[in-house]
Amino acid sequence: MIELRSDTFTLPSEEMMDSIKKAVLGDDVYGLDPTVNELEKKSAELLGKADAVLFPSGTMANLASIMAHCPRGTKVLVGDKSDIYIYEAGGATVCGGIIYDPIPTEKNGTLKIKNIETRFPKDPTDPQFALPSLLCIENPSNRTGGRVLPLAYLQELNHYTRMKNIPIHMDGARIFNASVALDISPIEIAMFADSVQFCLSKGLSAPIGSIVAGSSPFIKKVRMIRKMLGGGMRQAGIIAAPGIVALENRNDVLKKDHIKATNLAEKLSLIKEIDVSPNVETNMVFFTLKKEFLIATFISTCEMYGLNIDELEPGVIRAVLHSNVSNEDVEKAAEIIKKAIPFSKREFT
Amino acid sequence: MIELRSDTFTLPSEEMMDSIKKAVLGDDVYGLDPTVNELEKKSAELLGKADAVLFPSGTMANLASIMAHCPRGTKVLVGDKSDIYIYEAGGATVCGGIIYDPIPTEKNGTLKIKNIETRFPKDPTDPQFALPSLLCIENPSNRTGGRVLPLAYLQELNHYTRMKNIPIHMDGARIFNASVALDISPIEIAMFADSVQFCLSKGLSAPIGSIVAGSSPFIKKVRMIRKMLGGGMRQAGIIAAPGIVALENRNDVLKKDHIKATNLAEKLSLIKEIDVSPNVETNMVFFTLKKEFLIATFISTCEMYGLNIDELEPGVIRAVLHSNVSNEDVEKAAEIIKKAIPFSKREFT
Amino acid sequence: MIELRSDTFTLPSEEMMDSIKKAVLGDDVYGLDPTVNELEKKSAELLGKADAVLFPSGTMANLASIMAHCPRGTKVLVGDKSDIYIYEAGGATVCGGIIYDPIPTEKNGTLKIKNIETRFPKDPTDPQFALPSLLCIENPSNRTGGRVLPLAYLQELNHYTRMKNIPIHMDGARIFNASVALDISPIEIAMFADSVQFCLSKGLSAPIGSIVAGSSPFIKKVRMIRKMLGGGMRQAGIIAAPGIVALENRNDVLKKDHIKATNLAEKLSLIKEIDVSPNVETNMVFFTLKKEFLIATFISTCEMYGLNIDELEPGVIRAVLHSNVSNEDVEKAAEIIKKAIPFSKREFT
Amino acid sequence: MIELRSDTFTLPSEEMMDSIKKAVLGDDVYGLDPTVNELEKKSAELLGKADAVLFPSGTMANLASIMAHCPRGTKVLVGDKSDIYIYEAGGATVCGGIIYDPIPTEKNGTLKIKNIETRFPKDPTDPQFALPSLLCIENPSNRTGGRVLPLAYLQELNHYTRMKNIPIHMDGARIFNASVALDISPIEIAMFADSVQFCLSKGLSAPIGSIVAGSSPFIKKVRMIRKMLGGGMRQAGIIAAPGIVALENRNDVLKKDHIKATNLAEKLSLIKEIDVSPNVETNMVFFTLKKEFLIATFISTCEMYGLNIDELEPGVIRAVLHSNVSNEDVEKAAEIIKKAIPFSKREFT
Repeated sequence: MIELRSDTFTLPSEEMMDSIKKAVLGDDVYGLDPTVNELEKKSAELLGKADAVLFPSGTMANLASIMAHCPRGTKVLVGDKSDIYIYEAGGATVCGGIIYDPIPTEKNGTLKIKNIETRFPKDPTDPQFALPSLLCIENPSNRTGGRVLPLAYLQELNHYTRMKNIPIHMDGARIFNASVALDISPIEIAMFADSVQFCLSKGLSAPIGSIVAGSSPFIKKVRMIRKMLGGGMRQAGIIAAPGIVALENRNDVLKKDHIKATNLAEKLSLIKEIDVSPNVETNMVFFTLKKEFLIATFISTCEMYGLNIDELEPGVIRAVLHSNVSNEDVEKAAEIIKKAIPFSKREFT
Repeated sequence: MIELRSDTFTLPSEEMMDSIKKAVLGDDVYGLDPTVNELEKKSAELLGKADAVLFPSGTMANLASIMAHCPRGTKVLVGDKSDIYIYEAGGATVCGGIIYDPIPTEKNGTLKIKNIETRFPKDPTDPQFALPSLLCIENPSNRTGGRVLPLAYLQELNHYTRMKNIPIHMDGARIFNASVALDISPIEIAMFADSVQFCLSKGLSAPIGSIVAGSSPFIKKVRMIRKMLGGGMRQAGIIAAPGIVALENRNDVLKKDHIKATNLAEKLSLIKEIDVSPNVETNMVFFTLKKEFLIATFISTCEMYGLNIDELEPGVIRAVLHSNVSNEDVEKAAEIIKKAIPFSKREFT
Repeated sequence: MIELRSDTFTLPSEEMMDSIKKAVLGDDVYGLDPTVNELEKKSAELLGKADAVLFPSGTMANLASIMAHCPRGTKVLVGDKSDIYIYEAGGATVCGGIIYDPIPTEKNGTLKIKNIETRFPKDPTDPQFALPSLLCIENPSNRTGGRVLPLAYLQELNHYTRMKNIPIHMDGARIFNASVALDISPIEIAMFADSVQFCLSKGLSAPIGSIVAGSSPFIKKVRMIRKMLGGGMRQAGIIAAPGIVALENRNDVLKKDHIKATNLAEKLSLIKEIDVSPNVETNMVFFTLKKEFLIATFISTCEMYGLNIDELEPGVIRAVLHSNVSNEDVEKAAEIIKKAIPFSKREFT
Repeated sequence: MIELRSDTFTLPSEEMMDSIKKAVLGDDVYGLDPTVNELEKKSAELLGKADAVLFPSGTMANLASIMAHCPRGTKVLVGDKSDIYIYEAGGATVCGGIIYDPIPTEKNGTLKIKNIETRFPKDPTDPQFALPSLLCIENPSNRTGGRVLPLAYLQELNHYTRMKNIPIHMDGARIFNASVALDISPIEIAMFADSVQFCLSKGLSAPIGSIVAGSSPFIKKVRMIRKMLGGGMRQAGIIAAPGIVALENRNDVLKKDHIKATNLAEKLSLIKEIDVSPNVETNMVFFTLKKEFLIATFISTCEMYGLNIDELEPGVIRAVLHSNVSNEDVEKAAEIIKKAIPFSKREFT
């Protein structure tokens, strides 16, 4: 089975599994797991932040970050197509009494400053209004095709939010894909955000875990909240060890993923019943079928032929390339897609 | 260093580490990790419940259980010396809008029904009062010395709460210690609770993880809440595999721990400057020093001699026995304690 | 000073003030204020509901209703231009852990069913998604010009939400304006909602108070929540008495307000520098100035001439007619507006 | 019917009702009700605070104060017999994510500093523990008999909490009873608290309303929260006007109440089947019946004879004196109680 639904399906490499066996462990709730400490230190350095902390998931990493930034009763500004807004079950509202205020997401994944500006009431002392206390951005932006936010945009946004006196949290679940795509250090991206989250378990292929990096006082607050949410784990070195391997190998792995994505996109662009998004910037390919085809039938036909692929939003199919997909798999996937199309034709309306 | 501060310090066995290497993995957020599924099935069977679910920590396992049981604005009745009340940072209040209502904890770890009864207002329609929606019990009870709740008590409590129409959640972080102590199946203990939490990472010695077991609809609710809190993990089989080993070996391991505890208690009872609690029922030994000794000095002297031990509450020292402590270590620990005492004498008041 | 900023500025009539003096009072926290009981009974009857309850404000009336309908962690679907969403400080998130999910508001104040439909995830058991548990509508819709939702629309919406198994809460702050505009009983409007809130203190001109009406079990829940929020008042008959007078006189008062609004709109439509919204259905007139005029200057010039008027959203000015504005005031207001325009011209850009 | 269940039953005086008629009103949500502004200014002055704000109830006044003091996830320390803890439906938990931590209430209404001290964890950076952010005290203390907290105690407490860096909120629902009892200015009591709440609707006999007083920035925060909770009221002058009268007449009214309480206590002390609490410091008399009498029967017999009286907690009867009870009523009440006793005898057990 070729699995293109998500890079969360990646299985750990041999090297990662070996690293677990060799890991020196301790009780991380007491701060005594040396492998976790090493991963956290490396992560902070990699993003150019003062400190970092390990989480069992990206959902919790984002949740704790938002809670650390936003007092009860304030607003977190989020893209209306962001993972934080759509896929995280409203956690910041439930656990933090924080109001999500969705901003329209542009096609390239950015949020327009003029739209953000409308969320600040003219009179901030008017008690009718909840006030923004944080802006979240997603980089790369998943639902717009894995697109990388331009550095100039990040800089402008950073300048704007400084002026408005609110911090930026970057959901950088796939930030290293952005760094590879732009061929720059992740520091040059992370520098425009006050806090950054990234996932060890997506393209990086580690089994479990996400990291939040930021200033020391911020990470201290985040650690307090992590414990309350139940994210403090005991011998978490078994998670951290493959995470360290993942970070070391990240560039090689992700570069290959991006090439596979470009290859797949090229092959698909030759299929006339398909419209492929031209903006393949990282490890994702987005495409649509012409109107006379039924997506549900198409997806189940692909599955029958040995390819898992999914509809991300109505009409839009996402294929995510990752370390568990070989170049050969890419060829096969394109063939399966081609074969599946004729079976997906609507007969009647 | 002999580590008697907690059984959370236990490092995984060789067999556990090997199990990780061999584990078949998948994305557990999609329910596709076979090792996690196996652990959850085994756990449910072991406790005689319909279903079970894995968590990154006991804190989150308790939190999600309480949230699944208790609507916003209701009360969870908890022992005033329970871990849920003291050590879990008020999570149910923060994330669930649930009021903790502490009940005095008796010396044997039970909560008196007559005390519980006072928490139900005479007129439940009077809007001044928040109403109880759950009773939590801890078995064995950590802060009263690892004491096992009597089955007859559990039965009576179960009958009482049925009558009051509220469920029971058992914080059975160390429930298998209770089962070993009573020499009965854990089912015979768990049957008196609607939901049960246990830890893989305490005496059982797995690196990470806790389980909640209960009815199918309850576990479904708990899974929804787990995702919101950020407890959904990807290739969680690397946590589950050593958990399965831990469950298989639990009786052997814990029996030995209990014997070590009894042995240590006996040795300590020979030291005249010490008062050892006579109720060593599981893997813990509680003791106090006579008045002329300073606990802080005593603890740091022990540390200097190679023994970590801790004060649980003012004046009370807890020693927890576990799989990483050998019989020889027990001997040594007793000797160190004996040696440390004279150095801990208060010179002046 | 002519006050057209809002009908919340209305001062109580002589008759209302006399009613306070004559009111029989009691402690309403014990349910013993006969005047409150009378108002609640009349309100329920007027809307064709089983029961009703008095609140110190519309904000709290909406908040308690939403909390009674929505469990923690679910979504309330609201118009993105609704008062509940914009002006109530995120209360349902803070106090209830409820996620606001804004739906685009159409020009006539309706929310399209096809837009609502997108808020229901295909797989409601997928724990990534918070689920809708309530739809709020506003009738008349304030920010779209005091427009009345068509009955056929309400019926269709009601049918749709029944199918989706979620209730409707109608923010009918000005529901009697809708009833007067359509010349039908308020029952014929309220019947399409599970709960209805209306204000005694807007066009009805009572000094304080809002009512929520609904089924008996719902109102019982709302009363519990009201007490928790601090909305239980002692001798609340002093609020209820003028409320009763307000309800009795509602049709006369509101009809006059609507005529005044139509008159003002007609007069303004003769001023060529102004674009008046043609949809004057209740007591509000919305207008914009041609581009060469500055709104801030215009508003302050009006104020100088004795007219309070306000910008509701960028570029849109709202004039609200009410019982404290005479026909003569309407004439004067139109004149002031006409006079103020030339002074508001932008000199440079 | 003589009503001794609570001073919340007090009906407004003629003078108060006249004041409503004469009150100059405005929209207080815009800060434009001159009568409210006057009441708030007078209240602040009376307590020696910088600012004050009106609420529809004491419950909301306390709730908003606690929310303004306590960040999400922190603890409010409260007396286990305080009204805030028992009668306010857990509002701070529901609306604020704040954990109530009950401290044993002494017989004189004080909370021992050594008990408070146990609520501060040794290591405040340990994420297992929620941290105290506020201490609430009740003065006079209702459930211990309306007893007045000694000034020396308040001073010591104030000094202690300064050192611990947490503020004090005084639930002074009946603070003027304390001021009358001690024959000092309320400022000399309020000075030991950072914020003070008092009720206009208890002994002061106004129909509705409570006040919170404190520093300017604190009151600003409280106003924001009040709006979110729905406590912003429109022409609230109709509530404020009788409140102003209540404040002006407070000393006369309350002095008489205290004398009535002392008189009633004296009369009851002559009845041998009754044990009257000797500590009648304000307007309450607490008494118990000897064991051979049934309280429920006693209360219903009193009711039959024309006296409403209530059991506050198991076995303890509270009689509250107030402006609607004449000296003659006191005589009669004592007689009714005497008559009711023989009928309340248990025949068998």
